[in-house]
Amino acid sequence: MADSRFRITELHDLPEDLRERVGEIARKSGFVPNIFRALGHRPAELRAFLDYHEALMDRPEGLTKAERELVVVATSGANHCTYCIVAHGAVLRIRSKDPHLADQVAANPWGAELDERSRAIADLALALARSPEQFGAADLAKARAAGLTDDEIWDVGAITALFAASNRLAHLTALQPNPEFYLMGRENQMK
Amino acid sequence: MADSRFRITELHDLPEDLRERVGEIARKSGFVPNIFRALGHRPAELRAFLDYHEALMDRPEGLTKAERELVVVATSGANHCTYCIVAHGAVLRIRSKDPHLADQVAANPWGAELDERSRAIADLALALARSPEQFGAADLAKARAAGLTDDEIWDVGAITALFAASNRLAHLTALQPNPEFYLMGRENQMK
Amino acid sequence: MADSRFRITELHDLPEDLRERVGEIARKSGFVPNIFRALGHRPAELRAFLDYHEALMDRPEGLTKAERELVVVATSGANHCTYCIVAHGAVLRIRSKDPHLADQVAANPWGAELDERSRAIADLALALARSPEQFGAADLAKARAAGLTDDEIWDVGAITALFAASNRLAHLTALQPNPEFYLMGRENQMK
Amino acid sequence: MADSRFRITELHDLPEDLRERVGEIARKSGFVPNIFRALGHRPAELRAFLDYHEALMDRPEGLTKAERELVVVATSGANHCTYCIVAHGAVLRIRSKDPHLADQVAANPWGAELDERSRAIADLALALARSPEQFGAADLAKARAAGLTDDEIWDVGAITALFAASNRLAHLTALQPNPEFYLMGRENQMK
Amino acid sequence: MADSRFRITELHDLPEDLRERVGEIARKSGFVPNIFRALGHRPAELRAFLDYHEALMDRPEGLTKAERELVVVATSGANHCTYCIVAHGAVLRIRSKDPHLADQVAANPWGAELDERSRAIADLALALARSPEQFGAADLAKARAAGLTDDEIWDVGAITALFAASNRLAHLTALQPNPEFYLMGRENQMK
Amino acid sequence: MADSRFRITELHDLPEDLRERVGEIARKSGFVPNIFRALGHRPAELRAFLDYHEALMDRPEGLTKAERELVVVATSGANHCTYCIVAHGAVLRIRSKDPHLADQVAANPWGAELDERSRAIADLALALARSPEQFGAADLAKARAAGLTDDEIWDVGAITALFAASNRLAHLTALQPNPEFYLMGRENQMK
Repeated sequence: MADSRFRITELHDLPEDLRERVGEIARKSGFVPNIFRALGHRPAELRAFLDYHEALMDRPEGLTKAERELVVVATSGANHCTYCIVAHGAVLRIRSKDPHLADQVAANPWGAELDERSRAIADLALALARSPEQFGAADLAKARAAGLTDDEIWDVGAITALFAASNRLAHLTALQPNPEFYLMGRENQMK
Repeated sequence: MADSRFRITELHDLPEDLRERVGEIARKSGFVPNIFRALGHRPAELRAFLDYHEALMDRPEGLTKAERELVVVATSGANHCTYCIVAHGAVLRIRSKDPHLADQVAANPWGAELDERSRAIADLALALARSPEQFGAADLAKARAAGLTDDEIWDVGAITALFAASNRLAHLTALQPNPEFYLMGRENQMK
Repeated sequence: MADSRFRITELHDLPEDLRERVGEIARKSGFVPNIFRALGHRPAELRAFLDYHEALMDRPEGLTKAERELVVVATSGANHCTYCIVAHGAVLRIRSKDPHLADQVAANPWGAELDERSRAIADLALALARSPEQFGAADLAKARAAGLTDDEIWDVGAITALFAASNRLAHLTALQPNPEFYLMGRENQMK
Repeated sequence: MADSRFRITELHDLPEDLRERVGEIARKSGFVPNIFRALGHRPAELRAFLDYHEALMDRPEGLTKAERELVVVATSGANHCTYCIVAHGAVLRIRSKDPHLADQVAANPWGAELDERSRAIADLALALARSPEQFGAADLAKARAAGLTDDEIWDVGAITALFAASNRLAHLTALQPNPEFYLMGRENQMK
Repeated sequence: MADSRFRITELHDLPEDLRERVGEIARKSGFVPNIFRALGHRPAELRAFLDYHEALMDRPEGLTKAERELVVVATSGANHCTYCIVAHGAVLRIRSKDPHLADQVAANPWGAELDERSRAIADLALALARSPEQFGAADLAKARAAGLTDDEIWDVGAITALFAASNRLAHLTALQPNPEFYLMGRENQMK
Repeated sequence: MADSRFRITELHDLPEDLRERVGEIARKSGFVPNIFRALGHRPAELRAFLDYHEALMDRPEGLTKAERELVVVATSGANHCTYCIVAHGAVLRIRSKDPHLADQVAANPWGAELDERSRAIADLALALARSPEQFGAADLAKARAAGLTDDEIWDVGAITALFAASNRLAHLTALQPNPEFYLMGRENQMK
């Protein structure tokens, strides 16, 4: 089972700026996430993808980091995207300090039992993810009723949009999650 | 988060025959799977459920035990059933000796990369699981072309049918997986 | 047109306990319903199926017998299951003493005009039958608002689950209704 | 349960030409089919509807009369239109001289076991009925491979189109089938 | 790219009454709309179609002419019917005196921003157009809450029904819009 | 009707680098496309979006510029995204020098009659756009059979992914097309 249907680019074959950026991620994770190996043969696209990802996932205001990952796992679950479920499920376990949340949200994003604010975030993301033509004022009203600000609503919507793209890149390439992701965030529970 | 939306019945409150059967399962697993606690207030239904489950999941001929769990995880993934994905995902990890297969099949049962026979089993199950009115000769022909016998096709179809019921019982009750299931079959990889 | 895609087992070829149970049904109906002839080559499965069916369809408390058949016909209509529509449609005509109800519910289970309680029962069943991942608190709230107790809600949900299985067994086998079913419950109207 | 959500017009209140035409139908059937009572308050629309219906359902060339009713029952089954299923189901029983065909096609138009030509007719109708945006060359090729001429294909398509309208008028009005329809074409079997 | 998959009939080959009626339309438009050329080989059907169209689209009471075209464009957008979107989009531009409305409604009939009455008209049409089996009292209640009378509701429903047929005839024939339609109603904006 | 549900940022309020880049686009078009005014309050996201867009839409190898716009209009049509249909429809008219193609593809991306290579491009995009979990080897095989190289397939897939995001940003913001787009590429035909 190849990591991608298309050509893989290893870290050392990336242009210098990307080698540095992806290398920094690899140092933190302990491995090069396969998404970067799969996108590497198109440096301009990888660069824009990284920038977009950072702008939305590392933004200091608005949603918390765990909430951002919740949006990712909910939409990736709805889109049946294996790579994003496994990789971002790992990050959600770490960010939320909850070893079960990611599996529950990925399995059934519509039904997972969440506190009111988290449920509103997931519902907003799901409304935009699968039938965007039906997205409208009613969805926004429910989000606002749960206390989400316009800035937070934008965060949810924009992350959902980015992962609509990201999920499809993973489906296009049949991208395989790195083995390390499967266990991240589960360990501390296992002593 | 309650384990079920309805009344829970603990092992010691079950009628004797069920206490023994479920007790035996609990001894093997180390805990009482929540499905039995959730169904326990209706002993006749639990008894029939256990019988049906044994008849199909412990049958010595036909599909292997891992293949039976593959059918369960594929259909439960398609039906977004959290309990069955987490609980039978654990069993599939153990039966298949593959720590990643269950997560891949649950995340995207249509797309998971499987060997030809396993793919044919999953495809047959999925055809019957979600749009049964479209199930027909073409689905059977594909299964037979992949070498499945009529006895094996029945196994796939009957297990899919049983978990169409089982998934819905879990959705009805908002059944929570026991915490132990999340890690089963992942451990040996974690030294 | 064969009665099933798979092997048929006649009454006299069933194991003794099943021959007796199915024989009893045949004596009452005047014929052996094809579902038993189609499942007979797997006695353990047929036994569990019969037990489950009796536990839910002959239960003295909770829903009335006509209401149980309403659940079956509504979900079988939504699942386009010919055998269950024709066979249980016959039983619904008899139990409800209404010669038109079954045809109306089978044709359009979402739209059939029913009294408030029956409509709530059908709606609950339909919510669980086709998109179980979306089933949730809102569906339960509507059922309770119509006066359904938790015990009755369980009945609706569990019967829907059993016929999710039953419908799929019928689709798997391309099960044909016995000719007798088409006219049962219509006759008294025809003098 | 009213026969229609909107105003009913009885035979004697129709304009003369319609009174004559509908009266002729009523003489043959023994009753005034409710569709005419429901459309009667808009004589120009009823007139056009009758003309369109006659042009397609009484056309002497092309499909046989039973095949025309097969198209109606298949698309009405797919559209869950109670009035058209019950009323045209009755006509199909009479035209096809088969007391079970209509119930089988209405219950599951995709799966009903039909001879090759009838199956091709039903498949063509269903392709156009529910996802017309996907209708295309592949559907026509299958119809031609089964021996349908362009004239017959037009018949199937045009009848499907007319009943796309007719089904929606029945859904709009919550049109009830006349009681007589339920039993028509079943009687000769009941001596 | 042929104008239709089936035989085209030119104006001079139509029976006299149709030649006159279609000729009249052609004189007003400056060309013979392709729908008449495509239906012309079946004069009885074309005659009924023209009658039905006139009864509903030229009716002096009830909906305004622009509102009738709104129903057509909304349902044709939902049905992805190129001919009806382009041809009736042109008429909607002219009737509404709004050069952008038709493109917005055709692109996303569910989301296009409309005044309350127009939104209610479009919503009612869409409810009936795509999942007629779910159409019911709730849809009617919303229409009435927005001030639509029963006569207007009938107009919306009947036009939706007629174009359910019309869209399918266009899909059947792969009907091409006349080139003139693409620009009608845009010109005055272009000086 | 506001241009966006969220805050609009005018050209002169953008950070200098964006003011320059968007200003350049505005000089060429004669106006500032609303997408940039709607994203401007989040400069880092707008910057990444512009980079991604340039990397894919201005790439000199692989698909032609008209083919890239075909992917955008097909997926935006399937997603019912008004802004992208109107804005990129205009660009497709210009790039393809065909004043009708964009309207046909937007109205019915599955059915629009295209040459074999264009049809394969649109089909590939549509397979990934709406049910990405079903995307697989069969879709790739059809694309390759029509002569698409892996580099071209990547282009189709990556543009589809980017516009999965872009469409959702437009749905999130209820983004209105600039009035100029409606007529671009139609004019030369109108003398």
